[in-house]
Order: sequence, then C-alpha cells, then structure tokens
Amino acid sequence: MATCEENEALSSVLNQVPPLLTDLYQFTMAYAYWRAGRHNEPAVFELFFRDNPFGGGFSLFAGLSDCLLFLQNFTFSDDDVEYLRSVLPAGTDDAFFSYLRELDCSSVSVSAVPEGSVVFARVPLLEVSGPLAVVQLLETSLLCLVNYASLVCSNAARFRLAAGPTRRLMEMGLRRAQGPNGGLTASRYTYIGGFDLTSNALAGRLFGIPVAGTMAHSYVTSFSSLEEVWPQTLAPCGGGGDPIDFICLVKGWLGRVCQLLGSKTNLVREGELAAFLSYAIAYPQNFLPVIDSYSVSCSGLPCFCAVALALCELQYRPLGVRLDSGDLCRQSLEDNEIDVVGVGTHLVTCTRQPSLGCVYKLIEVRGRPRMKISEDPEKSTLPGRKSVYRLLDTDGHPQMDLICLSEEPAPKAGVPLNYFPLGLNKAVQTVTPVQVALSERLHTLVSDITKGNSKGSNFLLSN
Amino acid sequence: MATCEENEALSSVLNQVPPLLTDLYQFTMAYAYWRAGRHNEPAVFELFFRDNPFGGGFSLFAGLSDCLLFLQNFTFSDDDVEYLRSVLPAGTDDAFFSYLRELDCSSVSVSAVPEGSVVFARVPLLEVSGPLAVVQLLETSLLCLVNYASLVCSNAARFRLAAGPTRRLMEMGLRRAQGPNGGLTASRYTYIGGFDLTSNALAGRLFGIPVAGTMAHSYVTSFSSLEEVWPQTLAPCGGGGDPIDFICLVKGWLGRVCQLLGSKTNLVREGELAAFLSYAIAYPQNFLPVIDSYSVSCSGLPCFCAVALALCELQYRPLGVRLDSGDLCRQSLEDNEIDVVGVGTHLVTCTRQPSLGCVYKLIEVRGRPRMKISEDPEKSTLPGRKSVYRLLDTDGHPQMDLICLSEEPAPKAGVPLNYFPLGLNKAVQTVTPVQVALSERLHTLVSDITKGNSKGSNFLLSN
Repeated sequence: MATCEENEALSSVLNQVPPLLTDLYQFTMAYAYWRAGRHNEPAVFELFFRDNPFGGGFSLFAGLSDCLLFLQNFTFSDDDVEYLRSVLPAGTDDAFFSYLRELDCSSVSVSAVPEGSVVFARVPLLEVSGPLAVVQLLETSLLCLVNYASLVCSNAARFRLAAGPTRRLMEMGLRRAQGPNGGLTASRYTYIGGFDLTSNALAGRLFGIPVAGTMAHSYVTSFSSLEEVWPQTLAPCGGGGDPIDFICLVKGWLGRVCQLLGSKTNLVREGELAAFLSYAIAYPQNFLPVIDSYSVSCSGLPCFCAVALALCELQYRPLGVRLDSGDLCRQSLEDNEIDVVGVGTHLVTCTRQPSLGCVYKLIEVRGRPRMKISEDPEKSTLPGRKSVYRLLDTDGHPQMDLICLSEEPAPKAGVPLNYFPLGLNKAVQTVTPVQVALSERLHTLVSDITKGNSKGSNFLLSN
Repeated sequence: MATCEENEALSSVLNQVPPLLTDLYQFTMAYAYWRAGRHNEPAVFELFFRDNPFGGGFSLFAGLSDCLLFLQNFTFSDDDVEYLRSVLPAGTDDAFFSYLRELDCSSVSVSAVPEGSVVFARVPLLEVSGPLAVVQLLETSLLCLVNYASLVCSNAARFRLAAGPTRRLMEMGLRRAQGPNGGLTASRYTYIGGFDLTSNALAGRLFGIPVAGTMAHSYVTSFSSLEEVWPQTLAPCGGGGDPIDFICLVKGWLGRVCQLLGSKTNLVREGELAAFLSYAIAYPQNFLPVIDSYSVSCSGLPCFCAVALALCELQYRPLGVRLDSGDLCRQSLEDNEIDVVGVGTHLVTCTRQPSLGCVYKLIEVRGRPRMKISEDPEKSTLPGRKSVYRLLDTDGHPQMDLICLSEEPAPKAGVPLNYFPLGLNKAVQTVTPVQVALSERLHTLVSDITKGNSKGSNFLLSN
C-alpha cells in the first residue's frame, strides 16, 4: 500500500485551491473597501441555494472539508500579488498589494451544517464571518468547492433511493467529467452520496473508495482466434490438481450450451470466446466478462456460459456478466439479478440539472443586517445572522427546518410556535415540534482558523 | 509579472494527470494481455464522437496539448504500483507489477487534427498507436482530457456565432463548474472557442487570458450611508487640479438626473449611491457599477448617471454599467449598446448537453483491422487505420470530410470520386472536390513520444 504521507501529499496537490482561483472582481471590490478604510469592518456572508436540485425535495451538503483546507492555506505569494498588480487598473495604490501579501484567514470563522447533511433550499449551509475584504475575497472559491460537490452528492443520493438499499452502485463517469479534477470530485462525493464503488483508480487510492472493473469491448475485439489464448491450461481451484487443457474443456461445454440454448455454434465469435478464455485463465476467481461486443444472444451469452461452466467444473465460481448497451432490462432475464449498477455520464454531469446555483450573500456588516432587494423577489436575501433548527415529528423524522435570527430564543419541544413559510404571500402558520434536532442549532462552528482546528464531522446518508 | 518558470510549474501541477487517473478495468485488461503474452502486439485506437453536440452541425476539437503532456509524463511510481497490487485480484503475477513500473509512452505515436479545429461526428480526432497494453491503459485519461475540453470549446464557439464577431464575450462560470480544475478547463477552452475575457484570475495568470470584473451586489449592499465614503474628494483627471468635494458634486448631479428621468430622489438608496461614489473614487478611470442591487430604474440608474456625470465633469470617462438580473433586454434601452456579454453557468456546464460522448475504439491489432459490431448499429465501429481529407468547394469552404483507409489513394482536386455517406442504407454518391485541404491529410503526426517532441499547432476559430 502507498504510505499515508504520500497519499496526503498527492491529495493536497490535487485539492489545493490557490487563492487566485477566484473572480477578478473580488480584488477590485477588496481594493475599493481598502481605499475607503472599510476592509477590516466585521462582516458576515452566508452560502445557500435557492431551489432544491433535480425538481426534488432535498439536497445533500458537501465540500466542507475542501473549504476548510482552502481557508487554512489562504495566502498570496509574491508572484500572485505581482500578477494582480499587472491586471488591476493603473492607479491602484501600492500599499494595497502589501496588504494582500500579508492576508490570511486567521480572523475568519466558519459555521456550517455537517458534511453530507440533508439540507433544503434557502437554509444557510455556511456562515462565514471576518474582515469585510477578506470574506469578500473568499466568495468564488467557496462557491466553486460547494456547488458541484453538493450537486453530484445529491444526484448520487437520488440514484441510491431509486436503487434501494442493497443493490450496489458504481460510479464510472471519469471520462465524461469536467476534466481530471472534475472526475475526482465526482468519485469522492458520489461515494458520500451513497455509491459503493468507483472505476476511478486514483480516487480509490486518494480517498479509500473501493474500486472495481473488468473489461471493455476493446479487450474482446482485440482477439480474433483461439490461437491467441495463452497459456491454454488452468489448474483446478485450490491448486490440488494438474493443469487441464482449458480450451478443450470450454469447447466441450460450448457444444452443450448451444444445444441447450438452441443457438448455432457457427454464429459464436471465435475472438469473443478467445477473449473470455484468456481472461478466465488470467483471473479464474474474477470472471465477469462484457458480453455485448457482438451479439449477446448468438455469441456473448453462449461464450460466457461455456467458460463459466468450465470454471465451475474446476471449482471456480464465476462472478457474472456485464451489459453495456442495448435494452438492459430485456437482456437481463427475469431470473437473473442485477446486483451492481454502474452509472457514468448522467451521474457525473448531472444531466437533468448540471448546476446547483449556490450563492454567497452579505447578511451583516458592523453588526447591522444587510439585504439585497431584487426586482425578482425570489432573489431578495434574508438579512441578519441566523440560527437554524430542525424540528422533528412524533416518529423522529425531520418535519421542517426553522430559520430564526440568532438572537431569537430557541424553539422548545411541545411549545407551539408561529412561523412564516418561505415564499410569497404565505400566511403565518403554527407548528408544535415534538423534538428539536441536535437539541439546539443545526449549525456548528467548524473552523476557527486562528487555532487551525477543524472539527467538521461526517453525517452520511449511506456508507 | 510572475516569472514564466513559476507559471509553468504551477500550470504543470494543476494540469499533470497521474497515470492512475483511469478506470481500474484498464489494469485488469492489461494484465490479461500481459498474461497471454499479447501486451506488446502493435495496436491502434482512435478517438471520436458519434454525434455533433448541441444538435448542431460541428464541434471544435480541444485538449490535445493536455493529452501530449499526459503522454510525456506517463510513468507509474512505486506507490502507484503498490496501490494497484492492493486492489487487483489476488493471484495477479508479481512480474506484471515490475512490467507496469517500467512502462512509459516511448513506443506510442499520436496523430491528431490540430487543436481548435472544426471537426465532425465520427471523424477520428486522435489516432493512438503502440503496444496493445499501453495504448489500452491510456483510454480513460485521453477521453477525460478531450471530452469536456472539446465540448466547452464548441459551446463557446456557438455563443461566439450568436454574438457576432465584434461584441466581446466574457466567461464567468468558475463558481458553477465541476470544482477548481473544471473551472480552469472551462476558462482555457472557452477562450480557444472564441471568448475574449474571463473572470477567473488564476486562468488569466496561467494561460494569459485577459481578465475583467468590477463589483458584485455584496459590495453595493455593504454600504448604507454616505458617511462610509472615504476619501470624499477626487482630483480632476490628469492631476492638474485640486481635489474637489466629490460627494457634493455628485449630489448636485443626482438632483438634475432625477428631475430629467422623472424619478424620486427619496427612492434613491443612499447605500447604493455611497457604493458607487466609493468605487468611483477608488477607480475613477474604471467606473462600471452593477446597477440592479435594489431597483434599476428608481435607484441604480439615477446613481450611475449622477456619478458618471460628475466623473465626466472631472474629465474621467465612465465605462458603463453591469446588469445581472431581470430582463436584460428590456432594461438595456435601445439606444444603449451591450458590448460585453458575460456567460457563466450555461457556458461551463453546457446545460443543453453536458457531455460530448467521445469514445476510444480499437481499430487494428497486428496489422489486422478490428471492429465492434453492436446490436445498436450506430455503435458499430469503422475498422482499420484511416486518412481523413477535407474537401473544399469552389468558394474554398469545407464541403465534406472524406474518411478513407490509409492505404487508399488520396483524392485529387477535379477528379470525381464515389463515396458512401455515413449512416444506414445510404446509396453511393459522387463528389468532385475543387480542392483538398492542407493538400493532403487532415491529420498530422503530433507526437513521437520517443523524441519528446510535440508539434501540435493551434488552428483557432477566433482570438
């Protein structure tokens, strides 16, 4: 196994987000704050999304640990600052660049819902407080780290709900993701969202996710004749017997299989049979071929059965087959069980809704609540610092999340309270919580950067 | 400016794709090839997509330089190999891991269409030849590097075509991309696809893309009163005069503007006016505020006009306004020109079709053509090594791409030739090319990894 240190070093290179990975306007705004002497005013932003993704009723929150890593490493190098000097408008005061060079997040605090939590629209996921210019500079990077992680994690959870609790789910979207890092992010957060396996070997190594995979069509089509099979013998399982001519054994089974299935031996592709034979000889304990390179019924299935029965005769246990095209339900006969489902493109690109739309809004400056009032009422923000409580019903299931101002008293179990449902022109309603989750606030302070400690806990839907 | 060396080092860390970033089944297949003694058989794969994206008639090809970088650095570390040993099935021969440890791409050749080329469905974009096990191992990483780069580059080109040749286009999708690297990939390849600017500061630094940006709503909502404006004076442009009380000057203009626009001064947000004033004093040469934090007509527009006219009085030239919500066309009056359009989410996530669907198919082993015959005829492959010629019409415009076997003679200008249109049951047709592009093949050998040279040229649609 690779050493932990090596893994951490590699992981940190791949995940390290340089503070320059942000929108340029964060710097023009920071300069304007600095020029007006406002850069150190205490300010609070919150990060949330406006609508649950995929037309559904919930989302998962993910990306918190990446955010904390980003905050811990937030400093500008001399070269970063020189680059900014070259692109900010002429006349930007030199002293501003010295200020940037010395910035870090030691005065920034973050409170957040735990990584992997079930969350809902408009509930603050992160609350970030600190000096106005600094917490402004963090906006784009935090959004970038939370948006896709939460979206793909939520998408995975929806596949998990559809698949039920026992069928295993495998992520295999690396080739269709937004580049290498997009692929790693997908593997990592679909695992948190409830997937069991990934095809991505690097994700397996970096994040400890179980990996799986057998063969592609190219492996099958690379064979054209039984002469390519080597070695041609296989010893029985357990090593207790002499190697047996495996080609001969499989040929015998193939005749009987074709007879039984009513298929014609002359339609069986010799290359496909050779590919299966060769793979079975290499991995007799792990025989799981892809059977749709040519024709499932005429060639793939008879070849699989013949090799599988020959393996059984030698006391090996074949694992199953892989189907990669066509009508998967029709091709899987009713008496066969689909026990692993692999999902690629639709999982990692989140085809139905490829962005979550998290935003990062200013809610308080110098202790005064701030609000954006949009001509589109949905885009107006809720001003002020908030506490969020999850109210539970008599069965212990979440009933609603209650957003209060932080100075308001906490709701109490058994005590009725009035609330306004979010949305336009909704009347006051009353609820009596049976229980208030975590006894108190949904959020916990996860990062006091001064002390360099982060206590983000995992609260997973699955796994 | 940052040094070139520093940029290159940072860029290489960010772009370096470890060879472990691939699907596990590449290794199980490689083992089966190796076990059968077939791993060094000469093999050829080609990379292509089956349908033009976005329901359109073309795509751009991008990602080539990343592919070449990947191939040049392709080696497994001891730790990579140890990880693979821990996840491959028990019984995998030890000697295979020694073989992996010594692998590189010195025997691999790549020919490709040039980066940024206009390309069409089913035309090979890359042809990769080399030892069977090695070129198999490359599949997922190459697909990952080409798929999204080409998709987002093509998406950018479509925005460019819609916007016309002169209006400037700015990419601002970092916060909605698939994590940090997804955002960088988007910035890089939308620039190749015809965008002019990015909001992404790191992309500006790494790839030399021009960056732009002014302010977000949070900047505006952070102000609540004119008392927060500091300094309160501004000297006329050119430095030839004494600083003038800028707040006073703007207040004077505001009255006149409100009178002219018929808007009420009591509806003007003092915080918005303070924000604009403060920004104008910080950046008098670069005044371009976002005017929809509250109400465009009642506050944002009057505030902009007042500050802009005051700047004009001091000989500065305001740049314009930014609109970020609502009906952008309605809010932009007819006599105003929209000269920069920023696109974020829809550009980087390619909402309409978030994956290109490139595939990597085996076409030849040991000089013999190979083919996948699917029950879905669209998924069958075209066997054998190919040459591709772009035929031009009398105006010099591309007329069709001709795919031939590489041993077939090249088409000649003025000589009629018969061809089969791609698709089912199409009859033979005849075309007489007026000219054949590049005098010969569309593809050029871009990488002979042995010599470590790559001569991938740029062939850009724009920029």
